[in-house]
Amino acid sequence: MKHKVLSDPVHGFIHIPSGLPHELVEHPFFQRLRRIKQLGMTSLVFPGAIHTRFQHVLGATYLTQMAIESLQSKGADISSEEAEAVTTAILLHDIGHGPFSHALEYSIVDGIKHERLSELFMDRLNTEFDGRLDLAIQIFKNEYHKPFLHQLVSSQLDMDRLDYLRRDSFFTGVSEGAIGSARIIKMLNVVDGNLAVEAKGIYSIENFLIARRLMYWQVYLHKTSLAAEEMLVRILKRAKYLADKGENLFGTPALCYFLNNKVGIRQFKSREKVVGNKDALEVFADLDDNDIMVSIKVWSEHADKVLSYLCKAMKDRHLFKIEISKKPFPKEYVASIRKNVKNKLECSNHALNYLVVRGSITNNAYSRADDRINILFKDGSQQDIGKASDMLNISVLSKTVKKYYICYPKFKASL
Amino acid sequence: MKHKVLSDPVHGFIHIPSGLPHELVEHPFFQRLRRIKQLGMTSLVFPGAIHTRFQHVLGATYLTQMAIESLQSKGADISSEEAEAVTTAILLHDIGHGPFSHALEYSIVDGIKHERLSELFMDRLNTEFDGRLDLAIQIFKNEYHKPFLHQLVSSQLDMDRLDYLRRDSFFTGVSEGAIGSARIIKMLNVVDGNLAVEAKGIYSIENFLIARRLMYWQVYLHKTSLAAEEMLVRILKRAKYLADKGENLFGTPALCYFLNNKVGIRQFKSREKVVGNKDALEVFADLDDNDIMVSIKVWSEHADKVLSYLCKAMKDRHLFKIEISKKPFPKEYVASIRKNVKNKLECSNHALNYLVVRGSITNNAYSRADDRINILFKDGSQQDIGKASDMLNISVLSKTVKKYYICYPKFKASL
Amino acid sequence: MKHKVLSDPVHGFIHIPSGLPHELVEHPFFQRLRRIKQLGMTSLVFPGAIHTRFQHVLGATYLTQMAIESLQSKGADISSEEAEAVTTAILLHDIGHGPFSHALEYSIVDGIKHERLSELFMDRLNTEFDGRLDLAIQIFKNEYHKPFLHQLVSSQLDMDRLDYLRRDSFFTGVSEGAIGSARIIKMLNVVDGNLAVEAKGIYSIENFLIARRLMYWQVYLHKTSLAAEEMLVRILKRAKYLADKGENLFGTPALCYFLNNKVGIRQFKSREKVVGNKDALEVFADLDDNDIMVSIKVWSEHADKVLSYLCKAMKDRHLFKIEISKKPFPKEYVASIRKNVKNKLECSNHALNYLVVRGSITNNAYSRADDRINILFKDGSQQDIGKASDMLNISVLSKTVKKYYICYPKFKASL
Amino acid sequence: MKHKVLSDPVHGFIHIPSGLPHELVEHPFFQRLRRIKQLGMTSLVFPGAIHTRFQHVLGATYLTQMAIESLQSKGADISSEEAEAVTTAILLHDIGHGPFSHALEYSIVDGIKHERLSELFMDRLNTEFDGRLDLAIQIFKNEYHKPFLHQLVSSQLDMDRLDYLRRDSFFTGVSEGAIGSARIIKMLNVVDGNLAVEAKGIYSIENFLIARRLMYWQVYLHKTSLAAEEMLVRILKRAKYLADKGENLFGTPALCYFLNNKVGIRQFKSREKVVGNKDALEVFADLDDNDIMVSIKVWSEHADKVLSYLCKAMKDRHLFKIEISKKPFPKEYVASIRKNVKNKLECSNHALNYLVVRGSITNNAYSRADDRINILFKDGSQQDIGKASDMLNISVLSKTVKKYYICYPKFKASL
Repeated sequence: MKHKVLSDPVHGFIHIPSGLPHELVEHPFFQRLRRIKQLGMTSLVFPGAIHTRFQHVLGATYLTQMAIESLQSKGADISSEEAEAVTTAILLHDIGHGPFSHALEYSIVDGIKHERLSELFMDRLNTEFDGRLDLAIQIFKNEYHKPFLHQLVSSQLDMDRLDYLRRDSFFTGVSEGAIGSARIIKMLNVVDGNLAVEAKGIYSIENFLIARRLMYWQVYLHKTSLAAEEMLVRILKRAKYLADKGENLFGTPALCYFLNNKVGIRQFKSREKVVGNKDALEVFADLDDNDIMVSIKVWSEHADKVLSYLCKAMKDRHLFKIEISKKPFPKEYVASIRKNVKNKLECSNHALNYLVVRGSITNNAYSRADDRINILFKDGSQQDIGKASDMLNISVLSKTVKKYYICYPKFKASL
Repeated sequence: MKHKVLSDPVHGFIHIPSGLPHELVEHPFFQRLRRIKQLGMTSLVFPGAIHTRFQHVLGATYLTQMAIESLQSKGADISSEEAEAVTTAILLHDIGHGPFSHALEYSIVDGIKHERLSELFMDRLNTEFDGRLDLAIQIFKNEYHKPFLHQLVSSQLDMDRLDYLRRDSFFTGVSEGAIGSARIIKMLNVVDGNLAVEAKGIYSIENFLIARRLMYWQVYLHKTSLAAEEMLVRILKRAKYLADKGENLFGTPALCYFLNNKVGIRQFKSREKVVGNKDALEVFADLDDNDIMVSIKVWSEHADKVLSYLCKAMKDRHLFKIEISKKPFPKEYVASIRKNVKNKLECSNHALNYLVVRGSITNNAYSRADDRINILFKDGSQQDIGKASDMLNISVLSKTVKKYYICYPKFKASL
Repeated sequence: MKHKVLSDPVHGFIHIPSGLPHELVEHPFFQRLRRIKQLGMTSLVFPGAIHTRFQHVLGATYLTQMAIESLQSKGADISSEEAEAVTTAILLHDIGHGPFSHALEYSIVDGIKHERLSELFMDRLNTEFDGRLDLAIQIFKNEYHKPFLHQLVSSQLDMDRLDYLRRDSFFTGVSEGAIGSARIIKMLNVVDGNLAVEAKGIYSIENFLIARRLMYWQVYLHKTSLAAEEMLVRILKRAKYLADKGENLFGTPALCYFLNNKVGIRQFKSREKVVGNKDALEVFADLDDNDIMVSIKVWSEHADKVLSYLCKAMKDRHLFKIEISKKPFPKEYVASIRKNVKNKLECSNHALNYLVVRGSITNNAYSRADDRINILFKDGSQQDIGKASDMLNISVLSKTVKKYYICYPKFKASL
Repeated sequence: MKHKVLSDPVHGFIHIPSGLPHELVEHPFFQRLRRIKQLGMTSLVFPGAIHTRFQHVLGATYLTQMAIESLQSKGADISSEEAEAVTTAILLHDIGHGPFSHALEYSIVDGIKHERLSELFMDRLNTEFDGRLDLAIQIFKNEYHKPFLHQLVSSQLDMDRLDYLRRDSFFTGVSEGAIGSARIIKMLNVVDGNLAVEAKGIYSIENFLIARRLMYWQVYLHKTSLAAEEMLVRILKRAKYLADKGENLFGTPALCYFLNNKVGIRQFKSREKVVGNKDALEVFADLDDNDIMVSIKVWSEHADKVLSYLCKAMKDRHLFKIEISKKPFPKEYVASIRKNVKNKLECSNHALNYLVVRGSITNNAYSRADDRINILFKDGSQQDIGKASDMLNISVLSKTVKKYYICYPKFKASL
């Protein structure tokens, strides 16, 4: 039986079980995750953050294996089929991610979230693997009668988060974002089919929530990353706009397909060949970070001044200046920036929409709505962490914090 | 110029500047810190936690050097004399610690806190060093006109805490208690003579406060540690009680002096020779963890059954059972435990006071009273972290949490 | 004064001094190193090894700063101009690297080593910066009268190696390859203008040489990496062959320029515009990993079956099978493999040259020839580590170990 | 079933299986290892090196569990009884260590090695546990028919060494001494009943041997540690000499028993009560680091000037000056030092034997004699690492390196 072992700087040796998990890891749809960075443009701020979705998914798989072992040792009923299925589900949970997912969602595959694409990929793989993914998909969609298996894959305290927080903290060097994944996993238990955390794990959970919050503001929503991401969205929107106008833009066949066509769920589901002998989903699977980066580089010489300005700025890391505020920026302030940019860059009002960008970010580290972290007390009772913790002001923690920003070229710039 | 370099598993190489700091480190009063564990009995729960006060003090010195460099690079006015003095102050901040400080304070040097002893030691050293510690002592006592220097040594965010949180987290293996000491130090600044944290450091401070809270409940107030500490206090109280009755107990001359005499501030200040040619403070300086441990081992064969029972239990790690509650234990419950213990161990009511122990612990991670962590905004304004953070319910964080406990022998025990 | 601080997972915070170093880091020639992986195809074996030359160069700069400080504290005469120049030299030591440097050297920029390109880039930058790089270039070329400054940048024990061994060990997870860079730097000294290691550092140097050897065989010459690299060379050679035949291949303008032209030193030195308004060196600076990767992906659908076979195999990680031997493979054995491949893939004899590949690798961890590690004894005498160490059989260590390999498609393959 | 989990800074969570291993860990003979430092006086040089034999033994147990799992997954036949027995054997492999073992062996329990004491303790425990240690003892003594089980406990590549090298490297901060224990364990296999290392592990083994060599010279035989250890031996010899003369020395009853009596194997085997109701082996089990340290402190005030001089020097870390040479020191040189010391300290010739100490140290990292590290090639053949490695000059590595030293008081000293 082939059984793959990989060396991971975060967790050490990771074992991929032979059988279905191993076959899936070898599939081109999975191998492409090697070419997609976990944190998109964040490496422009934290140069170490070039780790890939491939690494993250394997790390989450490792933690899932640990969790299964720990739960089994406490008597949880998990058959070997279920163990394989939940391993499969976590392996595939990010399979729908494209390059710079969020930027793409806001520009060229408008309106389709990666979660939806993950489901499409899983269905496609399930067909290819003759239905062997049925149980994994049931678990992924939370349609299986043991909800804790789904919760390992997707919940407030899933193995996805435990891995990405540790991993992102490791690669960015923001070491204080590290969480005690081993301790948390050791504290997990199953009650009435749901995951719960034993009471002595309360402080680890508080720490997990606060570390997550730290990583959000310090890394994921870092202002320079935001500026880079907004720049990328504008580049892609501008390219799409030019393509719509009939302009011929340099790109790989896969990227050009998305620039030159409006691709929605219907197209993704269709088996019609659209590029060579590939259908839309297969073409999407050909996209990775490299396709975007080469186009940005080539477009930096494009005749369209807005496009070439943005691309050159991105390539050489002359990112937008960004201002952040707790309140929306006053109209007059925005107008004065637009005017200023217009004067300096001598551009049209329409071009300004790609150069002066407003937006907002929100973060709530804990949403109480449908999904919670249950603390299990010795007497068998359970409480949401928000109540169980005497510390966390859960109403604050779950409150949506909204911040407003505006981005625009640093001067010395000229179109 | 001699300049000492030490290898530290937490910070790497630590440099002790030549001159006063180096001379102080070589002094017997300082070397004795090698023989005093930082966390007392905690190694009975976390076997790695055998690090010493010596290591901690050197680590805090290292961080102080980093902080001085960082502040100087931001333009803070710190002369080389001041730099040496603050280094000296942090080197000596724990010089008054005896073995198992808190246990001793509650038993044989009743009523004298280690902070007071630190001052006495500093004065003694200052005499010996011909007044070269004057400035360090002024800073230590917050009598110098640049309060930020004192705040590096002692405040909500001092180098003492930054080191001990990282160090205790490192040696216990509770890795999620780690804090971002390098990042926090990088964010420090001086405003109007006081230490402040630049606004972008808010999340690091939140993380620091929560990590500290985690370490409190997970490590410092771990219930088994508490049980061990209470056992130690009872051992020392029983020994003192027997000594007061005229019983001759095994011990080093230093320990016997404290068992056989009532030693208060007056004695500590006196230069009268009390053991050999040593005065009381010098005798105290002869005490370390070893004195306590050997007596516990020898007393485990003592004729007094209460003493020998407690000592044998400590030696072999048969610690008290401990129960913790948010409310005081009802009288009847305590009475039933006492009765139970009395029956099993066939002991007197008086003996029960050493065997059934009640107490309470409190923790507040942040006290707003006189000392605060100031956040410095770009516009120059400042706010307490409690207000600056949209997350931390500072009223909760600074609220005193009180828990009650009761300890008593696990059965199978017999006197 | 702008002064940049970067967070590095290996060394913590790295400071880029303002002035020339900071300006160079912001230059597009330098920023492109963000898009070139340090270890090329190695991430196909060690998924964590996706760190970039950008990170490595900053790390080497950090270690150089440490070394300068340490040497100055021992009395070495290093002016602030020299310190800046050596910092600049180390910042630029890898500036000539293209994507997958070694593969490119063997295919499309045949015969030009990256060291030569680094010099060309430095000269170009020196012109642009009005001669401010003069001293750095002198040091880089070992033409300055203080050879130890050059030795920090390039020698058996330079800061380049100290960084890349630690960094590659960190990101691959081969943690035992870690070396004691801080300890080694602490042991450096200058004698008669040359770098030497103080005698008590002998064991650290032995460890360094052995760790380096471990990393060579375990990582740099890992057989699967070799197979991947050979596959890449064949892809590029095949593409070049097709381009030479007049075939139009997909690629970025920069890559196409190198595929469609024979580019040698003369071209690199010329300022003639060859693509848009860029000369050959500027076009080279537009190349990075992304250019190669997208072409491989697009070529995997190319009509040339050899090219598309190789590219698809690379994309989906169906790498060559590789056999390694201490002796050359017998002719008959090679012939039998070629025959076998020919039968399975039904290809021409010419095509076989891209599909069955022989080669050899050599490694010598320590060459005694012109460059040595000098050990400095307390009596002032010096010895080469090979003599000073009673352990290292330096004649073995410096002996060229040669291994032979042969690569060919794993079967199930079909063109 | 009780099943204990401990937090270890080196390996993370360590599980002690319920049943015999758990009961043994709770035994007073085992708990005493908490009070014995792994590296004796080394913390006088590396302040972090205060880790205990208790921690080391648990770490070795953890690695043994990993090794058993790995070997079982490769098809090695290890029953659950055998797994428990080898776990038990490794748990007890150091049970005979007293405080500062080597110093004691050379002074007060002259002639009895800790290995012999470990066997005596195991026999004693086996009696107490009704023969349940039979299999563990067979394995420990290499009398079981599966020699690889013994080799896990004691051989060139046993779990003892793998743990102590990593642990000592971790706590001293000599991070480059770290070895790849996980990788080595993954490479282990069983051939004809013996442990072998798969061929691709050669470089890890080379690294292991060199790291071990580094740790020997850098840590275990550090000259200052040697000086401290020699000082301790002289203290104990002087105390023994005074006791033999009838002098009454301060000490715990356990230590006094060994000072005042000649204790050999016969005494250790006898069940005769010698102190209170304890026999000699039980009295030995009462000794730990604390007994030695308190006596040193008290004896620093003793009337015998040689004893008090040595003890005060040790207590305050005014260690011997030590010189090291590859050749024996010439008689005249020794005489001149003795004369010098005699003049300065005004002491007798007899006293000089405690003050000017000569000795030698030897180290061979690899002995080929009876015990070897076998490398297993793919064709099933095996070779000793000395032959299999093209690098290690095994004749050098296994050559006994002998160094001579002489220790004596640093001046300013006065008796």
